Amino acid sequence: MKIPITELRQKVVFTLMQNFSEEQSNRIADYLMWADMSGIKTQGLIKMTGSEPLQNIKPQHDITVERDTKLSQLINAGANPAPLVSQRATDVVIQKAKEHGFAIVGVHNTFSSNGAQAYYAERIANEDLIGIVMARSPGSVAPSDSLAPLFGTNPVGFAFPTNDDPLVFDMATSAMTWYGLVLAKARGEKIPENMAIDHEGNSTTDPNEAMNGALLPFDHGYKSSGMGMVVEIMAGPLAASAYCDCKTFDKEWGSTFIAIDPNLLVDVEKFKANCTNLITTVKTSRKKPGVSEIRLPGERARAAYKEAEASGTVEIDDVILKELGYLK
Amino acid sequence: MKIPITELRQKVVFTLMQNFSEEQSNRIADYLMWADMSGIKTQGLIKMTGSEPLQNIKPQHDITVERDTKLSQLINAGANPAPLVSQRATDVVIQKAKEHGFAIVGVHNTFSSNGAQAYYAERIANEDLIGIVMARSPGSVAPSDSLAPLFGTNPVGFAFPTNDDPLVFDMATSAMTWYGLVLAKARGEKIPENMAIDHEGNSTTDPNEAMNGALLPFDHGYKSSGMGMVVEIMAGPLAASAYCDCKTFDKEWGSTFIAIDPNLLVDVEKFKANCTNLITTVKTSRKKPGVSEIRLPGERARAAYKEAEASGTVEIDDVILKELGYLK
Repeated sequence: MKIPITELRQKVVFTLMQNFSEEQSNRIADYLMWADMSGIKTQGLIKMTGSEPLQNIKPQHDITVERDTKLSQLINAGANPAPLVSQRATDVVIQKAKEHGFAIVGVHNTFSSNGAQAYYAERIANEDLIGIVMARSPGSVAPSDSLAPLFGTNPVGFAFPTNDDPLVFDMATSAMTWYGLVLAKARGEKIPENMAIDHEGNSTTDPNEAMNGALLPFDHGYKSSGMGMVVEIMAGPLAASAYCDCKTFDKEWGSTFIAIDPNLLVDVEKFKANCTNLITTVKTSRKKPGVSEIRLPGERARAAYKEAEASGTVEIDDVILKELGYLK
Repeated sequence: MKIPITELRQKVVFTLMQNFSEEQSNRIADYLMWADMSGIKTQGLIKMTGSEPLQNIKPQHDITVERDTKLSQLINAGANPAPLVSQRATDVVIQKAKEHGFAIVGVHNTFSSNGAQAYYAERIANEDLIGIVMARSPGSVAPSDSLAPLFGTNPVGFAFPTNDDPLVFDMATSAMTWYGLVLAKARGEKIPENMAIDHEGNSTTDPNEAMNGALLPFDHGYKSSGMGMVVEIMAGPLAASAYCDCKTFDKEWGSTFIAIDPNLLVDVEKFKANCTNLITTVKTSRKKPGVSEIRLPGERARAAYKEAEASGTVEIDDVILKELGYLK
């Protein structure tokens, strides 16, 4: 049902405050509300439901800084919720890059996934910086030529400042998300063709067989497998996180946040104007037959977000609202 | 025919010295010899043949530095040969990153393509730095939903230091290279299915139709189109280069070189050991049926290079040798 945003946000913060401070709860809620308002339903309030709801996480210890330089910071998340730690990592990478032109922040030992990389990358781009955010997740994707689920679904997000909203692109390097597989299994549905293989390497549409086998990289070939490997390294070993590992499903997720000030090379105002012009050039180019509007990456999510903002309401699945006690 | 490496290298340097200094000629030869020895025949000595051979390039002006900070440098190449300028950009990015932990160098106004990004990325990784190199080329790829050849084939290369040789991955973000199209046309051959569209957006295997139409991004969908866009921006506007442009085919190629010291986040020796372990884990994992050996990205090229090095000879097409006057 559609629910007023202000009311929902208050409820979410109240629920999170059972285990987290008001400030922490607000930071987590910022991310969750953004995801649901953007129509990214698999990465929003749904994280507060199920067998390991976000609000019930018991961190091992406080978030600690393990390395800190002018340009970098390595954070041990202490198994705190990934969206909370990722908010902090984003704050740090922005602050350092604004001061020095570049920064990189690595995070390891978060609890579960930090959600959509687009959110953090866009926060960086809102500060007139280029944002690149990567996350390494437990092994579920078979590299090219292999049958073993060694790489995570390994999403990467990029965001560029423009004269208008940032240009944001994010993707999983896998053919489908792990969550999509979990959902199909729970619903007793099949998954699309060419997304996964069973334990022997045969193509399968059965989510159970896929879970015993592996997801495929998105182009089923060496290029997206290579991109998955890049993320596995950049958000694995480089962030002091686990890698090529399918045994630690509840810990050692890793992520890496990069911010680059365009002023290092060109005037940021000119860069922003060129990015705006690039968007216009693509959007006004000749369309493929049957395409009514050329969409740039991130455009659909932003339209959904703005619509929710304008209407003051957001659509949330009744099942989620009931499980959270927000709906009788 | 197989030709002794030392002899070939001398000849190449001699030919280049008709127009370039001995030092410049050696830097260009370093790259060209690497490409042919690595079996990357489309990016090596072939660049010294055809209608615009490398050695006949008349630069507009000397390579000039347009912006310089502790962490960055913007280079106007003055229409010098891209491999020459890219060697210099690689020197600079290594030196700055060794000193400060990170560096980014942008290059615009090179003559033609700098070849295989793997070469420059590997040079960076040989210095215990993570190398990321991107190049923007004239528009030939249609973004998702569009029929217009707005993005370049836009290759990107990554290299990671390990306890052994660097782990190197590079790819074009297009389904095939522009050079592949040129070659098919010259030979009167068809191109494979699903690589290109004609002017109206129909799939085509005719290289002429493809040249009047567009190449496709590598997964034919929004993910590789998005990756192509990322490179278009990072090596276009960020490097003060042209972008979304198919009218300036002989100039305004752009490229961007990034070097990151793993020590910013973790001890580099530990990082290298983990990368080595990642390689071993992938290579010794269960193989797909019919696969005799799991190959990591870059492995085939390195094996070819080492074989050439060990034998002291490299295979070069007789047509190329004759055109260069190295074979009667």
